[in-house]
Amino acid sequence: MADRPKTPLLDRVTLPSDLKAMSDRELHQLAAELRAETISAVSQTGGHLGAGLGVVELTVALHAVFDTPRDKLIWDVGHQCYPHKILTGRRDRIRTLRQEGGLSGFTKRSESPYDPFGAAHSSTSISAALGFAMAADLGGDPGDAIAVIGDGAMSAGMAFEAMNNAGHLKKRLFVILNDNEMSIAPPVGALSAYLSSIYAAAPMQDLKQVAKGIVGLLPSPLQEGAKRAKEMLKGMAVGGTLFESLGFEYVGPIDGHDLDQLLPVLRTLKARATGPVLLHVLTKKGKGYAPAEAARDRGHATGKFDVLTGVQVKAASNAPSYTKVFAQSLIAEAERDEKIVAVTAAMPDGTGLDLFAGRFPRRCFDVGIAEQHAVTFSAGLAAGGMKPFCAIYSTFLQRGYDQVVHDVAIQRLPVRFAIDRAGLVGADGATHAGAFDVAFLANLPGFVVMAAADEAELVHMVATAAAHDDGPIAFRYPRGEGVGVEMPARGVPLEIGKGRVVREGSRVALLSFGTRLAESLKAAEALGQRGVSVTVADARFAKPLDRELILHLARGHEALLTVEEGAIGGFGSHVAQLLAEKGMFDRGLKFRSLFLPDIFIDQASPEAMYRVAGLDAGHIEAKVLEALGVAVVGKRA
Amino acid sequence: MADRPKTPLLDRVTLPSDLKAMSDRELHQLAAELRAETISAVSQTGGHLGAGLGVVELTVALHAVFDTPRDKLIWDVGHQCYPHKILTGRRDRIRTLRQEGGLSGFTKRSESPYDPFGAAHSSTSISAALGFAMAADLGGDPGDAIAVIGDGAMSAGMAFEAMNNAGHLKKRLFVILNDNEMSIAPPVGALSAYLSSIYAAAPMQDLKQVAKGIVGLLPSPLQEGAKRAKEMLKGMAVGGTLFESLGFEYVGPIDGHDLDQLLPVLRTLKARATGPVLLHVLTKKGKGYAPAEAARDRGHATGKFDVLTGVQVKAASNAPSYTKVFAQSLIAEAERDEKIVAVTAAMPDGTGLDLFAGRFPRRCFDVGIAEQHAVTFSAGLAAGGMKPFCAIYSTFLQRGYDQVVHDVAIQRLPVRFAIDRAGLVGADGATHAGAFDVAFLANLPGFVVMAAADEAELVHMVATAAAHDDGPIAFRYPRGEGVGVEMPARGVPLEIGKGRVVREGSRVALLSFGTRLAESLKAAEALGQRGVSVTVADARFAKPLDRELILHLARGHEALLTVEEGAIGGFGSHVAQLLAEKGMFDRGLKFRSLFLPDIFIDQASPEAMYRVAGLDAGHIEAKVLEALGVAVVGKRA
Repeated sequence: MADRPKTPLLDRVTLPSDLKAMSDRELHQLAAELRAETISAVSQTGGHLGAGLGVVELTVALHAVFDTPRDKLIWDVGHQCYPHKILTGRRDRIRTLRQEGGLSGFTKRSESPYDPFGAAHSSTSISAALGFAMAADLGGDPGDAIAVIGDGAMSAGMAFEAMNNAGHLKKRLFVILNDNEMSIAPPVGALSAYLSSIYAAAPMQDLKQVAKGIVGLLPSPLQEGAKRAKEMLKGMAVGGTLFESLGFEYVGPIDGHDLDQLLPVLRTLKARATGPVLLHVLTKKGKGYAPAEAARDRGHATGKFDVLTGVQVKAASNAPSYTKVFAQSLIAEAERDEKIVAVTAAMPDGTGLDLFAGRFPRRCFDVGIAEQHAVTFSAGLAAGGMKPFCAIYSTFLQRGYDQVVHDVAIQRLPVRFAIDRAGLVGADGATHAGAFDVAFLANLPGFVVMAAADEAELVHMVATAAAHDDGPIAFRYPRGEGVGVEMPARGVPLEIGKGRVVREGSRVALLSFGTRLAESLKAAEALGQRGVSVTVADARFAKPLDRELILHLARGHEALLTVEEGAIGGFGSHVAQLLAEKGMFDRGLKFRSLFLPDIFIDQASPEAMYRVAGLDAGHIEAKVLEALGVAVVGKRA
Repeated sequence: MADRPKTPLLDRVTLPSDLKAMSDRELHQLAAELRAETISAVSQTGGHLGAGLGVVELTVALHAVFDTPRDKLIWDVGHQCYPHKILTGRRDRIRTLRQEGGLSGFTKRSESPYDPFGAAHSSTSISAALGFAMAADLGGDPGDAIAVIGDGAMSAGMAFEAMNNAGHLKKRLFVILNDNEMSIAPPVGALSAYLSSIYAAAPMQDLKQVAKGIVGLLPSPLQEGAKRAKEMLKGMAVGGTLFESLGFEYVGPIDGHDLDQLLPVLRTLKARATGPVLLHVLTKKGKGYAPAEAARDRGHATGKFDVLTGVQVKAASNAPSYTKVFAQSLIAEAERDEKIVAVTAAMPDGTGLDLFAGRFPRRCFDVGIAEQHAVTFSAGLAAGGMKPFCAIYSTFLQRGYDQVVHDVAIQRLPVRFAIDRAGLVGADGATHAGAFDVAFLANLPGFVVMAAADEAELVHMVATAAAHDDGPIAFRYPRGEGVGVEMPARGVPLEIGKGRVVREGSRVALLSFGTRLAESLKAAEALGQRGVSVTVADARFAKPLDRELILHLARGHEALLTVEEGAIGGFGSHVAQLLAEKGMFDRGLKFRSLFLPDIFIDQASPEAMYRVAGLDAGHIEAKVLEALGVAVVGKRA
């Protein structure tokens, strides 16, 4: 570890309270050391880099001015929290970020009292902070509530809902708008243009003068009358009427990398605020690390890298990612059908739709962090005669669930849902797991729900969705690379509700839904070597079920097991209800379902997570033997 | 039908195109007749009255100016659409509103081409309209897109998301803000105060002058240059910078009951608009019908009534409503525990929290139409040491699903969810059915999910939730009145995960979750008379399951059937997976689940809906006989 930066001041910090004894000059130095430590740590672990670098000074200033953990500091999304974790007693574990048993890549209540409210999905911080503020008002935990939220996250509906409610309740509350003009992708939407217009009207140098004016008022702000302080803050505002319309005092914008602005402004706000305040802070994602600043995504997320060069260590790739296969397949379909359009909620890169947008710029819509709108907008496109592919990660589709039910399913509109990151996702942990989509979609009347067993199947499912015009259809696929199968020249629509038998056997049937097919085949091989003959089928559809195939398997085998990478209530439950209804259990069919266990699984390698989940070949094999009543000596039962 | 109003002009209207031939003077008369017809119809059917009366003139003006159905007119929520239905070819069926086989109480695509996008949940119209607008832009269905949205609905996050996206896309789009200062309850939130400030600054009489100025420019608006028209529209705006911040042209406010303002302004906008326009229209809910105008909720929803007096026909009540029992139980708990607080998303009356707010005004939060925020705000309250009861209808909880998963369940925060309107809801139909909550909550790790079998059970479940501080807990209960059981003096917390046997039998076990218990008992009686001895149990918990009870029932009976008022993937699926895992099927247990069928059930009486759903005593009995393999002559199998 000879490469670690020298951090004499940071070395003196055990907890944020240690910052109270430091001079403003020392805090400047501390920020520089904190930035170096953050870069050094992430170079070893990989993770979210740019966002954290953008808030180094803000992190120092907030902890220096407020009294955490009594005051509740809530980082929206939480991926910018690495500097915060370093300052709040977790520096010794910062090089375990996003690893099994290590620190979470996000804020997490169970990890530290300095994380009063965890996050990972965006735009929740103002709601949570308002909850803390009202709890304090009613005799719950005392302390101030501070939400730090990015400009991208601010564009989501729930942030607006929270602002609207906070402006109504009029209680003291701090919202720091961390405006870096960049969420994961460059921001879209009218709000973004509005924010730009604010700071276009107020060049940074002028702001520095304003801030210096405030410094002149210190260090005795308490001697000033409340009215005077309010006027002073108002004088700083060069825009922000939108936020004022919502009942907030608007202050800013100020330079979020200049502690000489941050510290006095925060001190003044802390001393003076009586209602909800929005402090508009301008920052640069990736600030202070040239390779990040130069990157198109400002170093949003990175693998391990060399600190000097910024060059990332990349693992060799065996197969194309599912994301890329989806994008290329959709482009191929769209070449043939001009009605195909695509919708993403602020994830053009993550969903692969950046490729689609490159080919068909007018036919691709990035609606911002706005899953609710994304779904109903897609429904409107479908009602207007287009063929929309709405590409949203499984975990984020939860945010558009009512719209899926009410606007898509009830109206039977042919919206195509491309559900990436279905199943376990590795380092991003429980908050990003795609565990519930099959359960919450397959019970909707008229829906078609598919899961791709491999990347070739995904190609065909994109074609199936393109061809399916009689109601909504969804297909799910996991994070990461395919399994390396041969790719078809072009997608061919599958017959709706028909699965396929992949391996013929006689005693046991494994019915897989999705990418656990490979592990099911491995388990079948191992069982074969034990003399247990196993059929393996790929269900392809959780809805409509291939009733014929399933009943055939049930009648022709002693035991039937379903395997899926999703929670209870999904594929296995649908199969169970079919078997019950058809009287298959009355005849003593040995039935078992393998699905995600009833726990939120913390971050780890995907392989480790599958072991925890009991969804690898070994567990499938063991479950078959248990169902058959075969005692296995020296093996887990 | 001697009481029907005289409507000579309305009698000439078959379709909206008939309005094109009418003079403005005739349109005034038509509006008066349309109002009378609406009142007359709702007096016979019951339903949403106030909202429709508030948009009579707007309905006439929109159909007179725009070319529906080519132009897509989208009513947000849709409960104000009765006048629209009368004008769009459905007058002959308007007295079948909300009845089985009759017209829906909301807009509905399958009902008419004049309903291009159905609704029932709020705040979806702008997203849908933008979808139509972009579809038209890309070669899909041509025509303008017009969203009519109330001020309450505008405060929801998804409306903001849609505005933000529309302002960014800059395509021609009409949003009519129907501002009646009243959604179902009086509106809350900073946006509402902001809207009030706009029209406080512009007295109505001044606006009339402005509108007259516009009239002077007509009837030849097409001769005016586009620039001139834009300036004119701008001149009308006395506020609206919030909407301008989001990229909309703001026009208004104008008097929504004055066709002399509505017609010229809409004609000008239609002729001139090049981008997104927001027209701010002031209306009065219940306008023109004194009993509605005088009502606290402005005649929001009503039973059948006498047109002359406004007096409603009320059915005799046998038992208190579940809603009221919930409210009274919560008040009783809150008297004993000052940490208990309550949260509603714009439904204080519907959830019964108006009673709670009357007793504890500081401890009750109406956050507006903002379910996402409501859930995470509740999570923040819980993290701050309070005991929040978040009361949201089952169907609307879908809108806060990601927040339930991400902010409540993953963090294991003790938020109490009071889920009213669980199951089938009668006249409000499929859009308001509470079908999916058990499936989407019971698969979340750490959640406790209960359903009340009757109103006495609900009292105990409120007490259970109040006492449960180790993670989230939900309890569901249906719309309408209880079954008339004796009420306990006070709620006593139930043991978590423990059901109860209600009736002892020997051959078949019926395991009910929720209010189908009464029908299960009826079925057991009938089966007893056939010589089939039936045990009936009330599961109380879908999570955690009472494993001991369930396995005991499975081992001690030939057949086990679950009964619930929810979709597949819920209680019955959890029981099935437990039985599978424990090898109960291997032994030939006859297992069946009764749950809501795989269709969206249209409005009807609750009894008729249960028949359709197959969840009444007769169907339960038949299912038992089928499972036992007993042939039943002359009965449905």
